[in-house]
Amino acid sequence: MPNADLSLVDAYWRAANYLSAGQIYLMDNPLLTEPLTPEHIKPRLLGHWGTTPGLNFIYAHLNRVIRDRDLDVLFVTGPGHGGPALLANTWLEGTYSETYPDVPRDADGMRRLFRQFSFPGGVPSHVAPEVPGSIHEGGELGYSLAHAFGAAFDNPDLIVACVIGDGEAETGPLATSWHAGKFLNPQRDGAVLPILHLNGYKIANPSLLARIPHDELDALLRGYGHSPFYVEGDEPKAMHARMAEVLDQVVDEIHHIKGAEERPRWPMIVLRSPKGWTGPSEVDGVPVENTWRAHQVPLAGVRDNPDHLRQLETWLRSYQPAELFDDDGAPRPELAALVPDGTRRMGATPHANGGLLLRELKMPGIRAHAAEVIKHGTTHSEPTRVLGRMLRDIVTLNADARSFRIFGPDETASNRLDAVYEVTGKQWQAETSPVDEHLVHDGRVVEVLSEHLCQGMLEGYLLTGRHGLFNCYEAFIHIVDSMFNQHAKWLKTHKKLEWRRPVASLNYLLSSHVWQQDHNGFSHQDPGFIDHVMNKKAEVVRVYLPPDTNTLLSVADHCLRSKDYVNVIVAGKNETPDWLDVDEAILHCTRGAGIWDWASNDDGIEEPDVVLACAGDAPTVEVLAATSLLREHLPSLRVRVVNVVDLMRLQPDTEHPHGMPDREFDALFTTDKPVIFAYHGYPWLIHRLTYRRTNHHNLHVRGYKEEGTTTTPFDMLVLNDMDRYRLVIDVVDRVPGLGPKAARLRQHMQDQRTRHYNWIREHGEDMPEIRDWTWQ
Amino acid sequence: MPNADLSLVDAYWRAANYLSAGQIYLMDNPLLTEPLTPEHIKPRLLGHWGTTPGLNFIYAHLNRVIRDRDLDVLFVTGPGHGGPALLANTWLEGTYSETYPDVPRDADGMRRLFRQFSFPGGVPSHVAPEVPGSIHEGGELGYSLAHAFGAAFDNPDLIVACVIGDGEAETGPLATSWHAGKFLNPQRDGAVLPILHLNGYKIANPSLLARIPHDELDALLRGYGHSPFYVEGDEPKAMHARMAEVLDQVVDEIHHIKGAEERPRWPMIVLRSPKGWTGPSEVDGVPVENTWRAHQVPLAGVRDNPDHLRQLETWLRSYQPAELFDDDGAPRPELAALVPDGTRRMGATPHANGGLLLRELKMPGIRAHAAEVIKHGTTHSEPTRVLGRMLRDIVTLNADARSFRIFGPDETASNRLDAVYEVTGKQWQAETSPVDEHLVHDGRVVEVLSEHLCQGMLEGYLLTGRHGLFNCYEAFIHIVDSMFNQHAKWLKTHKKLEWRRPVASLNYLLSSHVWQQDHNGFSHQDPGFIDHVMNKKAEVVRVYLPPDTNTLLSVADHCLRSKDYVNVIVAGKNETPDWLDVDEAILHCTRGAGIWDWASNDDGIEEPDVVLACAGDAPTVEVLAATSLLREHLPSLRVRVVNVVDLMRLQPDTEHPHGMPDREFDALFTTDKPVIFAYHGYPWLIHRLTYRRTNHHNLHVRGYKEEGTTTTPFDMLVLNDMDRYRLVIDVVDRVPGLGPKAARLRQHMQDQRTRHYNWIREHGEDMPEIRDWTWQ
Repeated sequence: MPNADLSLVDAYWRAANYLSAGQIYLMDNPLLTEPLTPEHIKPRLLGHWGTTPGLNFIYAHLNRVIRDRDLDVLFVTGPGHGGPALLANTWLEGTYSETYPDVPRDADGMRRLFRQFSFPGGVPSHVAPEVPGSIHEGGELGYSLAHAFGAAFDNPDLIVACVIGDGEAETGPLATSWHAGKFLNPQRDGAVLPILHLNGYKIANPSLLARIPHDELDALLRGYGHSPFYVEGDEPKAMHARMAEVLDQVVDEIHHIKGAEERPRWPMIVLRSPKGWTGPSEVDGVPVENTWRAHQVPLAGVRDNPDHLRQLETWLRSYQPAELFDDDGAPRPELAALVPDGTRRMGATPHANGGLLLRELKMPGIRAHAAEVIKHGTTHSEPTRVLGRMLRDIVTLNADARSFRIFGPDETASNRLDAVYEVTGKQWQAETSPVDEHLVHDGRVVEVLSEHLCQGMLEGYLLTGRHGLFNCYEAFIHIVDSMFNQHAKWLKTHKKLEWRRPVASLNYLLSSHVWQQDHNGFSHQDPGFIDHVMNKKAEVVRVYLPPDTNTLLSVADHCLRSKDYVNVIVAGKNETPDWLDVDEAILHCTRGAGIWDWASNDDGIEEPDVVLACAGDAPTVEVLAATSLLREHLPSLRVRVVNVVDLMRLQPDTEHPHGMPDREFDALFTTDKPVIFAYHGYPWLIHRLTYRRTNHHNLHVRGYKEEGTTTTPFDMLVLNDMDRYRLVIDVVDRVPGLGPKAARLRQHMQDQRTRHYNWIREHGEDMPEIRDWTWQ
Repeated sequence: MPNADLSLVDAYWRAANYLSAGQIYLMDNPLLTEPLTPEHIKPRLLGHWGTTPGLNFIYAHLNRVIRDRDLDVLFVTGPGHGGPALLANTWLEGTYSETYPDVPRDADGMRRLFRQFSFPGGVPSHVAPEVPGSIHEGGELGYSLAHAFGAAFDNPDLIVACVIGDGEAETGPLATSWHAGKFLNPQRDGAVLPILHLNGYKIANPSLLARIPHDELDALLRGYGHSPFYVEGDEPKAMHARMAEVLDQVVDEIHHIKGAEERPRWPMIVLRSPKGWTGPSEVDGVPVENTWRAHQVPLAGVRDNPDHLRQLETWLRSYQPAELFDDDGAPRPELAALVPDGTRRMGATPHANGGLLLRELKMPGIRAHAAEVIKHGTTHSEPTRVLGRMLRDIVTLNADARSFRIFGPDETASNRLDAVYEVTGKQWQAETSPVDEHLVHDGRVVEVLSEHLCQGMLEGYLLTGRHGLFNCYEAFIHIVDSMFNQHAKWLKTHKKLEWRRPVASLNYLLSSHVWQQDHNGFSHQDPGFIDHVMNKKAEVVRVYLPPDTNTLLSVADHCLRSKDYVNVIVAGKNETPDWLDVDEAILHCTRGAGIWDWASNDDGIEEPDVVLACAGDAPTVEVLAATSLLREHLPSLRVRVVNVVDLMRLQPDTEHPHGMPDREFDALFTTDKPVIFAYHGYPWLIHRLTYRRTNHHNLHVRGYKEEGTTTTPFDMLVLNDMDRYRLVIDVVDRVPGLGPKAARLRQHMQDQRTRHYNWIREHGEDMPEIRDWTWQ
């Protein structure tokens, strides 16, 4: 590496450091054209210096190697609060001003850049959707490496440089993400270059990986499957030389590996540099640089303490801004020599604005796979198994585009989607054995027993402009509650940024759900992810509960075509009556909720005596069984059946774009008749969604109330008071004027429940009459 | 190891394997006294054979070494579905029958043991609270090692043998738990012996760690800080010899380490044995043993397929049950020679029934630290900082008992609990540097940047009979949503088992909450953990929102003394008006919700014109500010202020033990007056809790509605429509008959909001009048 080059890299680094510190402190006087006064200082000093100089160091060196070798690099900023660094670098390279013309590359733009940072109405202190070139929010820690792998899939010419903070490295999700290399195909996928940034400290503690012996750290990283290259020190000149040398070696190694068939040991970098590098080494007699005290704002008293103010000015001037920026505040032309061209600039890579690259998913349509339904509910099929066939065709249709993947924690076959294995396999680069099935070096299915890794890789894949599906046991999707939060927040902000193009929705298929857990029991029963999802912004979240095969196909077809949402589909895998033929299913799913006339006997004209509503596959079966019982025992009772597929329909239209106007809700649920609602999940959610409706006081909801164990499906319904007999009792208890016949029916239903309860405990299975039950 | 010994271990292993397979298949004929017929077979074959023989192997060998060396061992079963193994072993050693006398150690007991497994009304297929000797549910995977470390803390004579499945090893939480050794003091704490069980397969895939080269695996485990010992093979005799040898070496090594001061390299075992070991090697011409096909039930068709039935009988008889059990079905006396004595039996260790060992936490009382309050709301303090002083005293009072720990993800000081460092430090066994502060080899605070590890270690600590607190940023507690689920489910079951003694509650202190995120912004704003918690059983969960310092002390005092709950406390760290003196605070927290007469002007007699209710610190400030404004501008309006500390009080008493009867609720909130409720979290939760109340239709809730960024605290209130001016507008809009004065006030309030909004964006901070505001 010629020395001249490295002094340029150093100048670039100083410029980025200057711009970073400026963002944390300055309201005005951005070029220090006059001596600093308290009026130039922000009233609230909010920002994080500690990680910033290391990030700037990496970014500058990546620029050098991108230019030298014409590389395509996506930068993932793992460390929390890395905002100032990425804002500084994108401003320096010009991408920031291209994205935000009101922040130009001049003195006024620099002032705005500084002022807006962590300022009301401005930009966050983390790397966030607002930052050009980013697919990764730096607020919650743990997901950078999973995002990086997701971005690298099916991008053979891309290098994803992923900086991992040594704080973040302690999290569980990050700790397991190191293994994702076992799913990366060196030829068909891009490379992930992890850069473990050991700056030694977190908020208030040393980091673990910075405090283990070198041989232990080295063993750990080799154990993860990497070849580590070390860049360690604090003397800038030596560090520049070493970093440049290592980056060249690492890129050589990546190019070498691209020809490999088996899993290689991918190179990675360990950068050990001081926290708050080049910042104040001591403040008020206490060490700051290279300690946890450099985490946030090293000089906290600059507005009131003249010593601090002087120290800040000395620090800022140490970067020699006059050498770096011209009188107008623009970066000097020499610095431009380090900036890659056009979309090679990391702030301008289209991979970080995936909507630019997104191609529509080719869809087979649902008719080819739809269950044939001559008479409602008389044939049966396994909804997810049929969906598997549609997914198989999606895989085939999009094979050339290499733009669709299915992720799952070892549950894709258990969730009965295994038809996909007819045309593809499970991506696997680790060792194989002759007994293995469906493991291939180039497959569309990624299975690893980590919901975190599945979610993180899928997020990375989607945000770089591709499509995908995460299939998971319903209960354990809570493992990624917090990741969902962050992705939903990302989407909310992303949608407000016009320059960010729409990306494919994040689609969850939750199966093996609470009512289908006979293998597993209480620990596997939790339908609460829906409740969790509902707390996020209405414009981002959608929840669907298709009751049978054709409605599942219709919902999945819709979700896979949609953009910028999180779609949650809860669907069964066990044999279920086919309620609707394909046309009815499409219509019903389009409406989201509706009366099932064929199951009702209110003749569609008169007001019914009672509404039986259902959402979810098991509740639908029980509601239809209950109507059947009611028809038998109380033939004159007018029963209306309402099925809800799109849960958001229940809300007022003022609360959610899918919400129903009151008029429509009243037309379905009446204004004064009892409504018995059998719901898939925790019953209070239905109340939360409907408490403003006219007839809410007549609404009685049954659902899962946290009663369960390893038992039969029907016993689960009995334990949670959602079985057909209980629903009939609910009707009898709520419809007035049914007379003595009703009291007898009530007792009969109670006897039936007891009979089932006892039979199940004696025989260990459901009574055959439950399983054999068909509609009408 | 004498050969005689090992043939005994082998016999014991065969007995456990026989009992395990029996549980999966048999309804009757437990001793195979007659040829197997379909009637002996369970109708639903639900259970998991794959992991079981390996667990049995480990358990038998641990028995041997416990006996030989008089060890105190707690067994943690990481692999999912390990139920049959632990049920078999505890029955064999007698602890099961001692716990459940209706399942005696004879033929009838064996029949019951078999029949109850995965059977309606019986026991789950996972290791669950029902299993003696367990502190760990085997349903959701990932937490075994964290539980093991939590159990080992402050138990210097204990060895926690933790079996980690190679499926579980892929999860994030497990992957980071390996680092927990950096917090284990060899002298003051017990030893954790990880036994990584590489049986090669998960449900449908090979496991990653079984498919990397030996040198890579070895490097990984050494990188985690362990010295691995390998036991690999499938030939029982050789495997017995090797396992016995390794266990002796490992125990020697542990004893050697106990004298160390610095962090040692703790020994661990890698057991590589076939999945479904000793089961059918092939079924229907397809390999089963040592493949993923052995995961659940290797012979699925035994009831209908005579070949399968014969194969099952051959398999079961291969263990030679007649050699193992006498004619009455009791284990032969030879086997008893391997069973440790009394509470040395792993099923009888009191550590797994922590309530037996629990000693009351010594509490300092809250008066010593209470904020002095002469006049409501005129002095200020930082609630969590004051709580830190109380925690400091708890640490001191319980120093000798070594029974209290504080866990946190690097946030204990950020959450302002740092007074604890006056008397203790942060437990740390990794390398140190002269700049470090508060890192000690024997400290009560455990900080690691993994919420999973914090939660898992605390759970292990609590379930083995100690006390603790988890302090965390509010938003990121969602990271452990699923762990909370499992712990709450554990507690629900635990409470129903009379033999399980009460354990200390799991206490969450959530601070740096949604309204106090000026450093961080949108990614750090999520008050939804409360919603998540509310889905679990009412008898287990409690949520508190203390509005000031003295109420926080009272709530924390209560929670730390309580048993068998999960308590969630959401509390602020920023300066807050002291609303209540200590006596008022105790009374108010005891009531859980009440009228603040001193803040109301309805004279406590008349019905008010409007109720202003609040729950949470920020909402309370805004409500009191709003009442102040109302008093100034509409002095004749009768305003009642209600504050809610215990959120569960809002529910009907039929729904939660803390719930209020309707009469009481009506007395607080009236039956017909407008209620404006300012709530800390997502507003719809308040509706969910109160939709059955008489006056619900008059309830108008303000809260966090997912609007936020990096901005000032008051701006956050404005963005989410919960600021004082908005609350006054809500009153004006809802109280009828206020006349023209009200319209002017409305406009004035709107102008105030705009003025603040603009000021904040211009100056970057809240207007001083907001910060300086005091009550009355």
